[in-house]
Amino acid sequence: MLTDPALADLRALFGDRLSTQGPVLAEHGQSESLVSAGLPDAVVFPRATDEVAALARWSTTHRVPLIGWGAGTSLEGHALAVAGGVVVDFRNMAAVLEIRAEDRLVRVQPGITREALNVELRTTGLMFPVDPGANASLGGMAATRASGTTAVRYGTMRDNVRGLEVVLASGEVIRTGTGAPKSSAGYDLTALFVGSEGTLGLITELTLKLHGQPEAVMTAVAAFPSVGAAVDCVIATMQMGLTPARIEFLDTDTVTACNAYSRLSLPPAPQLLVEFHGHPAGLAEDVDRFRTLAADFGAEGLDWAERPEDRTRLWAARHSAYRAILASRPGAKAVVTDVCVPISRLAEAVEETRADIAASGIPGPILGHVGDGNFHAILLVDPASDAEIATAKALAGRMADRALRLGGTITGEHGVGFGKRPYMQAEHGEGWAVMGALKRALDPLGLMNPGKVIPD
Amino acid sequence: MLTDPALADLRALFGDRLSTQGPVLAEHGQSESLVSAGLPDAVVFPRATDEVAALARWSTTHRVPLIGWGAGTSLEGHALAVAGGVVVDFRNMAAVLEIRAEDRLVRVQPGITREALNVELRTTGLMFPVDPGANASLGGMAATRASGTTAVRYGTMRDNVRGLEVVLASGEVIRTGTGAPKSSAGYDLTALFVGSEGTLGLITELTLKLHGQPEAVMTAVAAFPSVGAAVDCVIATMQMGLTPARIEFLDTDTVTACNAYSRLSLPPAPQLLVEFHGHPAGLAEDVDRFRTLAADFGAEGLDWAERPEDRTRLWAARHSAYRAILASRPGAKAVVTDVCVPISRLAEAVEETRADIAASGIPGPILGHVGDGNFHAILLVDPASDAEIATAKALAGRMADRALRLGGTITGEHGVGFGKRPYMQAEHGEGWAVMGALKRALDPLGLMNPGKVIPD
Repeated sequence: MLTDPALADLRALFGDRLSTQGPVLAEHGQSESLVSAGLPDAVVFPRATDEVAALARWSTTHRVPLIGWGAGTSLEGHALAVAGGVVVDFRNMAAVLEIRAEDRLVRVQPGITREALNVELRTTGLMFPVDPGANASLGGMAATRASGTTAVRYGTMRDNVRGLEVVLASGEVIRTGTGAPKSSAGYDLTALFVGSEGTLGLITELTLKLHGQPEAVMTAVAAFPSVGAAVDCVIATMQMGLTPARIEFLDTDTVTACNAYSRLSLPPAPQLLVEFHGHPAGLAEDVDRFRTLAADFGAEGLDWAERPEDRTRLWAARHSAYRAILASRPGAKAVVTDVCVPISRLAEAVEETRADIAASGIPGPILGHVGDGNFHAILLVDPASDAEIATAKALAGRMADRALRLGGTITGEHGVGFGKRPYMQAEHGEGWAVMGALKRALDPLGLMNPGKVIPD
Repeated sequence: MLTDPALADLRALFGDRLSTQGPVLAEHGQSESLVSAGLPDAVVFPRATDEVAALARWSTTHRVPLIGWGAGTSLEGHALAVAGGVVVDFRNMAAVLEIRAEDRLVRVQPGITREALNVELRTTGLMFPVDPGANASLGGMAATRASGTTAVRYGTMRDNVRGLEVVLASGEVIRTGTGAPKSSAGYDLTALFVGSEGTLGLITELTLKLHGQPEAVMTAVAAFPSVGAAVDCVIATMQMGLTPARIEFLDTDTVTACNAYSRLSLPPAPQLLVEFHGHPAGLAEDVDRFRTLAADFGAEGLDWAERPEDRTRLWAARHSAYRAILASRPGAKAVVTDVCVPISRLAEAVEETRADIAASGIPGPILGHVGDGNFHAILLVDPASDAEIATAKALAGRMADRALRLGGTITGEHGVGFGKRPYMQAEHGEGWAVMGALKRALDPLGLMNPGKVIPD
């Protein structure tokens, strides 16, 4: 609960852009997944960096936590107020500030979503390719080091954020990075804040790298005789040095769910959905090589979607896969897992996970950005069944353990939030305490998104 | 000076792999450039991580600084003992520990040089492409966030270090990163240590990303009617989305020096040296596009080196450019500058710099990795002339100011050391103090490479 003086001071800063109304708090107290926490004490809607800086000073004065909020699409409870406090909703800071086409850069405010950004870029010949599926905000994507389907070619947010403006816990505003393509001028503060999930400061501006819209695009979907064959085809593709723009795996359960939800008629078998971007000649060569490889692994019905509308339909189905899977068990909630392993261990990781899920008795379709070694099982549980929830959480825990045993990570792209904190020690060892030391150096009072990422 | 108990304890740890002999101290008290400092008190040659960890504990006990040393090729005095202390020479930790060809990763010790690594990789079909020119150690390259000719396609050390083992000031050993291609599990400690120049800990092992050796390589050299035309051709190349593996600019003075030193007969004019890597068909397309572009900018004698020996000769000349320039003024020493600007401001940056150098009265050939907006002026001074040294330093300072004014960085790839510290405040503002806070969090006694990178 905010004290009266704290609330009065906050109202002086934000006026009617401060809310403590039940529905607004509730909207900012829920998340996409089963992860849940209490409600925030208030929500504010800043319009400019100096307001966020004033808010940070207010937070220090009154010892009240601040939690950043983008589009609310996080899957690990990043934006939930686990210890009360004020949610900072960036919806009013969602502008494109500057498009620098000749340097392939764009400067944006944190609240803009990736789809809105790409609409603004449409006529420039450029695009921002990082695509986590959900229409997330760029600030949130940077804060969680998001990636998604296109990371295999274009990289993750780690690779595509050139610089940031950040409001620190102290209220100071720093700018990281420069307009130059590279720099060796000291510690890489940009990289430190990307993935820090709002625990080191609040991102108030981003400079992002843009990429040319591809001259030519080829999309294919191929059915494989087994999960192993599909995954081995991915491994061979990557090891051959082909660089698809996307290479997505869908297991049979996922395909079945997508067929029902998106009115497709893909064969009920493990599928790869592949896209290549490039200049026409190089592209034809890549496509030929992939076709040969896929045939070697027993792919059938390798079907290239030549028309843009067919491509759009296929990728729309992929983007709807999460909703499709949820719809496949009416009333279910999802425990969404997210592991990433070395590509050489991918087949093993997927097969073991499938067997584990099959033995558990709950549905858990698997899909993933397999060119990166990253995959998800969407564990569907009856939210009223404590037993099913416990089963799903145990499965998720074994997936994390398995990823670590195979040399991978407990989260490829969803981040830590508080859902993944129990596995951080196992992944990082003494490095986790180092993260805690860095946090204390920048936020000694622990007011920036407390309860997330770092050790208690 | 080390105290007797400190020296005795150090000898107990390192035996005859400890030296306090004059010539050994002198070897570790000099650098490639004009930057100079005092001698270290001792040099040790560890063989394993646990020895480095014991050394860090010794350092804490006796309050003696530790300074890492790779191949001694740094240009900003990174490895010099500005406040005495012990230099940690990693020449005995130079092994390839594991090649994981299927994951395109290699695990190495920090003392191995990039050339030695690539010799070990030769039969695997893979390569480590980052190429700063000098045959630097991989540990040093990571510590300085090095890049060089190939960064335009393959990225810098920021992009090519997957994980590290680091000995902290406390003597604790942490491992950063995983074998998975990506992760969002907390703060990016790998990125924090890459570019930290030994001020946060000592790197004792690296996991590096490898790339496929290109199937086909095309190299061209082209003479342009003016500096502006050559640089504009680079800008157009990058803006068109062509991705050369290297695109190097040499001004007329550099070409003349290279002709004399490497017995070439390039026309005395501004030149671009370009290389494309790829599959045969895509490559032919890239080469055609570049040929057309270069012609548009007035290139003459666009000459493709088809034979490997011709390519090798051209690139050997480029790699010898620094020596060639030094040889062009016998007895001279070099003040090597290193700025990087947004590609849109590159022509302006180079032209202004050339005019400034021309007015100064000292020679200063310009060359650079212009696809990244990165270039160097090699300012040649008579080391006995304080006036020339002052002129060169003033020119270097104006280059840094100019780079910042144009939205760039004071150092594209050479790092900060102590040579560039005076410009850090101007580049980072309050961010520089943040670097200091991070440093104090991990090295509260200030024993890891003191006097470098961060504010006093």
